[in-house]
Formats: sequence, structure tokens, C-alpha cells
Amino acid sequence: VRIGFLIYPRFTALDAVGPYEVLSRIGAEVVWVGISAGTVPSDAGASLVAAVGLDECPELDVLVVPGGPGQEDLMEDDGVLSFLRERSAAADWTASVCTGSLLLGAAGLLEGRRAVTHWLAMDRLPEFGAEPVHERVVEDGRLIMAAGVSAGIDMGLLLVERIRGREAAEAIQLGIEYEPRPPFESGSPEKADPRLVDSMRQASRHLLQGSA
Amino acid sequence: VRIGFLIYPRFTALDAVGPYEVLSRIGAEVVWVGISAGTVPSDAGASLVAAVGLDECPELDVLVVPGGPGQEDLMEDDGVLSFLRERSAAADWTASVCTGSLLLGAAGLLEGRRAVTHWLAMDRLPEFGAEPVHERVVEDGRLIMAAGVSAGIDMGLLLVERIRGREAAEAIQLGIEYEPRPPFESGSPEKADPRLVDSMRQASRHLLQGSA
Repeated sequence: VRIGFLIYPRFTALDAVGPYEVLSRIGAEVVWVGISAGTVPSDAGASLVAAVGLDECPELDVLVVPGGPGQEDLMEDDGVLSFLRERSAAADWTASVCTGSLLLGAAGLLEGRRAVTHWLAMDRLPEFGAEPVHERVVEDGRLIMAAGVSAGIDMGLLLVERIRGREAAEAIQLGIEYEPRPPFESGSPEKADPRLVDSMRQASRHLLQGSA
Repeated sequence: VRIGFLIYPRFTALDAVGPYEVLSRIGAEVVWVGISAGTVPSDAGASLVAAVGLDECPELDVLVVPGGPGQEDLMEDDGVLSFLRERSAAADWTASVCTGSLLLGAAGLLEGRRAVTHWLAMDRLPEFGAEPVHERVVEDGRLIMAAGVSAGIDMGLLLVERIRGREAAEAIQLGIEYEPRPPFESGSPEKADPRLVDSMRQASRHLLQGSA
């Protein structure tokens, strides 16, 4: 199985590394794909290395698209969007994390699909003909999508179950000691302090207006 | 606040990127530190970029040490061990994830301390004068340690609470949508299928004998 992770300037590192840490453990061949080959800076100081650019990318069985603020710059990038369309059509699975699903949407891949993204971006899904579904991981046909950032780990484990079966997924969950203990009850807008949720919604609107 | 992440060949990417994704969001200056500057391959196909080598690393307020199979090669590396001793003495916090704590132990930093590591390595902690504590995150003075791989996210959030307070930690937890839904009950040796636990213990012994 060959799994490609698409990375681009200002992607969110955990969006990619969460599912990578899970999926790589099935003994897959992992390919980090950049717009072009070389160092790709994430949104907060980590840089990963893309072994190949879009043009040199080998055939992929699984394509994983992380999110991050840099996704916004690619929403009308023909090279990236046609890469997503072509590779998704040829792959067994196309996966996204966080706002990575907006890129799938921009590529036309979410038309008529159930979909999820970061909670702050859920209201953008209908632009792409998608039905927003408030679940941590959403599957629709050969698409599998995770909610914000950390949800990519849960998505990765479910995808391992689909590809290699439950025993393999349980072994990987044990290998990465994934028995999370979130220290606070603030991991979703339903549970977090409403004032915190409001202030993040306002900051995000401000940010989107600022970049528009 | 300046936070350094030590990376080395065959480190486990999620060990580092989990706490990085949390800690970087306090607006910290993040420094990726390699044995020398440049590309550092992890244990399963991801490569991160170290901006500086051990010798050029600036002063750190927080030092984070991930684990991974490559840790074994550094257990008698004087350059790395003296870096850990010196930087830990000067830092406000020293953090480890997974077998990163074995490196702290080899540097003499766990003598008389409560400590944790990956469940498969817990019985090695007494070699370093440490008391193994079966918790997901263990604090002792200015040391904070996480259990295997994914536990670094929980550790990161607790460390943000210590550094910036609970409100900041809750905001980051919401930002990374950390409301985990592990798909199976197999994230710890207590919960997983005992046959799976046994087979992983045996594989790990075999691995250690093979490398000895």
C-alpha cells in the first residue's frame, strides 16, 4: 500500500502527522508530496520534507490531505486541484483532516457528499455541495474525513480497520498507547466554555475578513 | 517563551509533533534542534527539519525530548547526554514523550524521580534510579513526562496550563478540537486483548535482543 500525504506552506503539522503515525504502521510506503519537492514550513514552526512534488508523485492507494491556514491559498490553485481530482479518482481512499476537506470541496469532490471539517469552518461545506455532518470522522464511499486537527488520529485508526482489519488497528492503537486523557472538557464547541467558543468564532471571522 | 524540540534519526514523529502542536500555540518561539542542523528522518518515513544543531542551540525555557527507536543509539552519546543535562538545568521545564524519558534517565536526570515511558519500556526505568508510575502524564518538580507516543498531546496541554494557565490550555484544546474518540478499547495493556499485549511484549524482547 502506498500512502501519500500532501503538504503545503502553512499546513498544520499534527493534521498530517497524526494519521501518518497510525497509517505508516501498517507497513505502508509513505510518500510526502509537496507542491514541489523540498522543505515545507507548517503554520507554527515545524517544517517537514516533501520527497516529491505534485508532478513527480507516484501512483497512490491512499491520499491524505491535511488542513491548516495555508489551505486558503490553494483554493483556486489549478495544479493542486487537478492533482486532487486525478489522484482521488485513482486511489482506493481519499482522506482529509480539518480544513483539508475544503480543498477536496474546491476540487469538486464533495458534491452531494456528507462531510466534516474543523468546527470553525463547518458552515463553508455547503458552498461545495456537501452536507455538514457533526461527527468526529465522516465516511462517504471512498472518502473519509476527520474534524479538526487531532481528529486525524481517530480517522487513521478507522482507515487502518478498513484497509487491514480490526486486529491491525487495535495493535496500532496499543502501539501508540492511544488511551487519551484530555485534561479539560473543552475539546468541542458543545462542551467548551461558551464565552471561549464565541471569542474564537469572532477571531476567526476577523481573520477571514482580514485575509479577504 | 522559547521551546526546543530535540530530534534525532529514527525519533517517532508524533512524539514530537503532538506536544509541538499544543505548545507552539501559546505564541512560543519554537526551535527544532538536531544533533546537527538539517533534515532528520523519523522512524517511519516522515522527515523534519532541525534549524540548529546541539552546539548552536539558543537558551531554552522548555526542552522537549521525544522517543522512538533511535533513542537507543544515543544512550551513551556524550554530546547528547551533556546537552540534556546542561539544558535541563537551565530550563524552566524539561518534558519527555515515550522513550524520550530513557534518554533523560541516561543523562542522570531521573535519579529518585517518579517517571513514565512507553508501556513496553516501563521496566527499564529503575535502571536510572526512577520509580515507574503507571499514569499517562507524570510530573516531578520541573520534569513532566508522557507515556507512549500519543500521550504527548495530553502532556502538552497540562504543560500549557502550568505555563499560561487553564484558560489558555482550554482554548488550545478547543483549537485542535481535542475530543478524542478512540475507535477501539485497545490503547493500553490493561484494556487491550491480552494475546495482543503478549505478542507485542515478545516482539519487543526479540527486537531488544536482536539489537544487543
